[in-house]
Amino acid sequence: MGELKVSRKRKKKNTIIDVNGVKIGGKNIVFIAGPCAISGKEEIIGIAKALKEKGADMLRGGAFKPRTNPYSFQGMGEEGLKCLKAARDETGLPIVTEVMDTKDVELVAKYADILQVGTRNMQNFSLLKEVGKAGKPVLLKRGMSATLDEFINAAEYIAAEGNNDVILCERGIRTFNTYTRNTLDLSLVPALKEKTHLPVVVDPSHGTGVRSFVVPMGKAAVASGCDGLMIEAHVDPEKSISDKDQTIDIDEFGRLVEEVRKVAKSVGRG
Amino acid sequence: MGELKVSRKRKKKNTIIDVNGVKIGGKNIVFIAGPCAISGKEEIIGIAKALKEKGADMLRGGAFKPRTNPYSFQGMGEEGLKCLKAARDETGLPIVTEVMDTKDVELVAKYADILQVGTRNMQNFSLLKEVGKAGKPVLLKRGMSATLDEFINAAEYIAAEGNNDVILCERGIRTFNTYTRNTLDLSLVPALKEKTHLPVVVDPSHGTGVRSFVVPMGKAAVASGCDGLMIEAHVDPEKSISDKDQTIDIDEFGRLVEEVRKVAKSVGRG
Amino acid sequence: MGELKVSRKRKKKNTIIDVNGVKIGGKNIVFIAGPCAISGKEEIIGIAKALKEKGADMLRGGAFKPRTNPYSFQGMGEEGLKCLKAARDETGLPIVTEVMDTKDVELVAKYADILQVGTRNMQNFSLLKEVGKAGKPVLLKRGMSATLDEFINAAEYIAAEGNNDVILCERGIRTFNTYTRNTLDLSLVPALKEKTHLPVVVDPSHGTGVRSFVVPMGKAAVASGCDGLMIEAHVDPEKSISDKDQTIDIDEFGRLVEEVRKVAKSVGRG
Amino acid sequence: MGELKVSRKRKKKNTIIDVNGVKIGGKNIVFIAGPCAISGKEEIIGIAKALKEKGADMLRGGAFKPRTNPYSFQGMGEEGLKCLKAARDETGLPIVTEVMDTKDVELVAKYADILQVGTRNMQNFSLLKEVGKAGKPVLLKRGMSATLDEFINAAEYIAAEGNNDVILCERGIRTFNTYTRNTLDLSLVPALKEKTHLPVVVDPSHGTGVRSFVVPMGKAAVASGCDGLMIEAHVDPEKSISDKDQTIDIDEFGRLVEEVRKVAKSVGRG
Repeated sequence: MGELKVSRKRKKKNTIIDVNGVKIGGKNIVFIAGPCAISGKEEIIGIAKALKEKGADMLRGGAFKPRTNPYSFQGMGEEGLKCLKAARDETGLPIVTEVMDTKDVELVAKYADILQVGTRNMQNFSLLKEVGKAGKPVLLKRGMSATLDEFINAAEYIAAEGNNDVILCERGIRTFNTYTRNTLDLSLVPALKEKTHLPVVVDPSHGTGVRSFVVPMGKAAVASGCDGLMIEAHVDPEKSISDKDQTIDIDEFGRLVEEVRKVAKSVGRG
Repeated sequence: MGELKVSRKRKKKNTIIDVNGVKIGGKNIVFIAGPCAISGKEEIIGIAKALKEKGADMLRGGAFKPRTNPYSFQGMGEEGLKCLKAARDETGLPIVTEVMDTKDVELVAKYADILQVGTRNMQNFSLLKEVGKAGKPVLLKRGMSATLDEFINAAEYIAAEGNNDVILCERGIRTFNTYTRNTLDLSLVPALKEKTHLPVVVDPSHGTGVRSFVVPMGKAAVASGCDGLMIEAHVDPEKSISDKDQTIDIDEFGRLVEEVRKVAKSVGRG
Repeated sequence: MGELKVSRKRKKKNTIIDVNGVKIGGKNIVFIAGPCAISGKEEIIGIAKALKEKGADMLRGGAFKPRTNPYSFQGMGEEGLKCLKAARDETGLPIVTEVMDTKDVELVAKYADILQVGTRNMQNFSLLKEVGKAGKPVLLKRGMSATLDEFINAAEYIAAEGNNDVILCERGIRTFNTYTRNTLDLSLVPALKEKTHLPVVVDPSHGTGVRSFVVPMGKAAVASGCDGLMIEAHVDPEKSISDKDQTIDIDEFGRLVEEVRKVAKSVGRG
Repeated sequence: MGELKVSRKRKKKNTIIDVNGVKIGGKNIVFIAGPCAISGKEEIIGIAKALKEKGADMLRGGAFKPRTNPYSFQGMGEEGLKCLKAARDETGLPIVTEVMDTKDVELVAKYADILQVGTRNMQNFSLLKEVGKAGKPVLLKRGMSATLDEFINAAEYIAAEGNNDVILCERGIRTFNTYTRNTLDLSLVPALKEKTHLPVVVDPSHGTGVRSFVVPMGKAAVASGCDGLMIEAHVDPEKSISDKDQTIDIDEFGRLVEEVRKVAKSVGRG
């Protein structure tokens, strides 16, 4: 893998990505939080303010939603992007949101600070190429059964287009386990840190699918060496459009930030 | 699942798809064969003729290729589609070929008789919607770690756009096994037949990744109740651009057809 | 693996094991059938007679039962072995039954014609050594997540003690699938046939856990090249002590034998 | 699960096991370290002294070794147990060692302070019952593909015999990943803590199979809430009889203890 642009062999120093002043990949642990899906402007602004107060560094939320069933709510689309923009205008929090179609990359890039490529599209190579040209950092989620090598090569698809600002996100893999929705594979964090120079974040919400596991696994993720956490949080988790079993409320998010910061300090992070 | 368009509860009788006279989903087992990737007009015409003589009913071959590494050969693109068209003109075999980008659906639909959605795009919902509108039958490959429910819902994305001509393809799943490239999950065949009215084909080439297992697993697939087989075959497997370990030669393909037909007869198929 | 006693490299010809006149590993497909657990003498005799009439070659049934929960019924023990013996005396069907403890090997070997080592004990190396010394053929079930190499080496533990009469049994592996209890890994059949000279049987009952999949997967198993099937069957499946969702009744077993024999003939088997 | 003896519903307070003065399940993180296999008295005494100096609380080492291949070294047997006893006499470190056969339980219990039941025997129910009667604490390793429910029920087999001193050990599961030997499933720690009152330890050596991942995953394990770590360590890892790729040396073990203690403190542990 010595020849890949994302490889540690090609660049020894960690890549630090600056997103409107929030640095990811450096000393500080970055907290990216928000609801699964956007459902209205006032709501998302309220969530963003509450999360910021508790320590969130960036806001996540879906305007285009990948749903297993074609008749499920597919997201607000551009309206949702506008809601996110309003929340950023209000709070200053940079926005992370998913893009699912090559045709929508330009549109989403107009509003988002970070383009998210979701788990189901990790090997949608056309989309990877397109986001590689969009001039915005990309948060790339690992596929449900992607190998280390496939994940790194998916990042390389983006880098190959000239965009080195790729954030890798571990979010759990498919195994025989049913006590969790996915099996969070934290060994991937030191592995990615050895093989690549890119920032690595962990999503313990999707990675477990169980609300009470989000805080302990968030702490474990940071102890394993990751650069940030991606958390599903909502002022009222029961109102989440999807994924409510794994969504924590604002107070729990506050507790998460507090506890994770102690662990971060114990491993030499800010 | 009673409410889905693809559900057996909604339609008791098997869907039979007529592709330029080749019927899939009916009594006869359909053999779809060809190389992983198209590399030239004369070559693909030669392969198509040889396969037809041995019993192939349709020709498969990739013009747009999903490759793990961004620097690997990505397929001939439209040139490859033209080669496939030439092979159809010569042999009459309908053509199955993959489309990977919503932007390319119209182009591929101009040449192909069946649009293939690959494993890595099974939950590329934008692509599913687009091929659902293209007016051509779709061959949908199961994702590497897709559940039964996710696979059926992916087909429903296509049907929801008004296109009921969906062929489901089992091609192996990711497990801990390393003696095969994937683990061919043949129980999915009776499961899909119970739950849906759609034709089901099996790809023992990708499903095992081992040349010597293609014939026995092809026979097993037909014994389990599938409607067709998808086989990687080449006049010279060593010249395959990818997947050569699982590609069989023309004689082996002939032996496959012969042996599979005996099994087909033993289970009441043509 | 050239050096292992069970390796095909060490012995080219198939091992054929003669169990009281029933030959396994030769031309004929062997049907091993019976209930999960023995619950009484009259019942097992009734089941044995009914199965024999429909074509069963051997009788299976558990006297010592591996149960997940310690408070579940653990089997009748020696009483169960006596019931099995009575059924053999009545029908002539050889008996296959599980042994779980090195201390019980001598006892079970007194009654059984074939000693079964279950899935959970495939790498109970002490037990493998002990059954290797017991002077009876051994049916070794694959562990839930055993690799090909581990399975073959487990057989070698038995052979290393001087007992070459080992029957290998594929019974499904653990994967992310939930539509089946286990994922039946039929590619293992040609793999085991290539690597070893031992007879291979398939258990589609445990391998799927779904009654309606037993017949199609039994046919698929034989088409893939196995030497026999192991089937959970009961005169009244609803009365099965465990595994009732995968247990078929006598008529269904009769249909299985009939349909499998047609497939067997189509692949050159008796 | 309310009715199980090991269930948190049955007993709210954590079980704290006192092993010759070392308490596991309480505030302090317990370090259990040592080589995979015992190969001589002087060597194991040297390793024990060196590990104790760096912070080890208990000594682990195998006298009976479960090996995939029957012709691999199977352990020193009773001689190995005597070596372990000598190391305990010299250092005071309690001893953890594996027992594989019901026939050996009495013998191993004569020397060991904690009886280990290995991964391959997690559902060897005869062995579980036998160690449940041996009057010594038991360290139970999770099976390679054991579910949460199966793991807890295996512990219940021991408790049902009257022995409540069971330590649960997560050691990685089988998945499609090949960049690690097993996939360390740390979410199991909070899950076991919710469902049971038993102490939980994590083995990042087997859980990753990669030397450089042992320290980060040891820290992550403690951050997730476990009570101790089980570590393969040797004065000269290259001389390890097995598992040398995952064995760390004494200095690395010292660094592990130091770093883990910082994380432990950050999560309120001693």
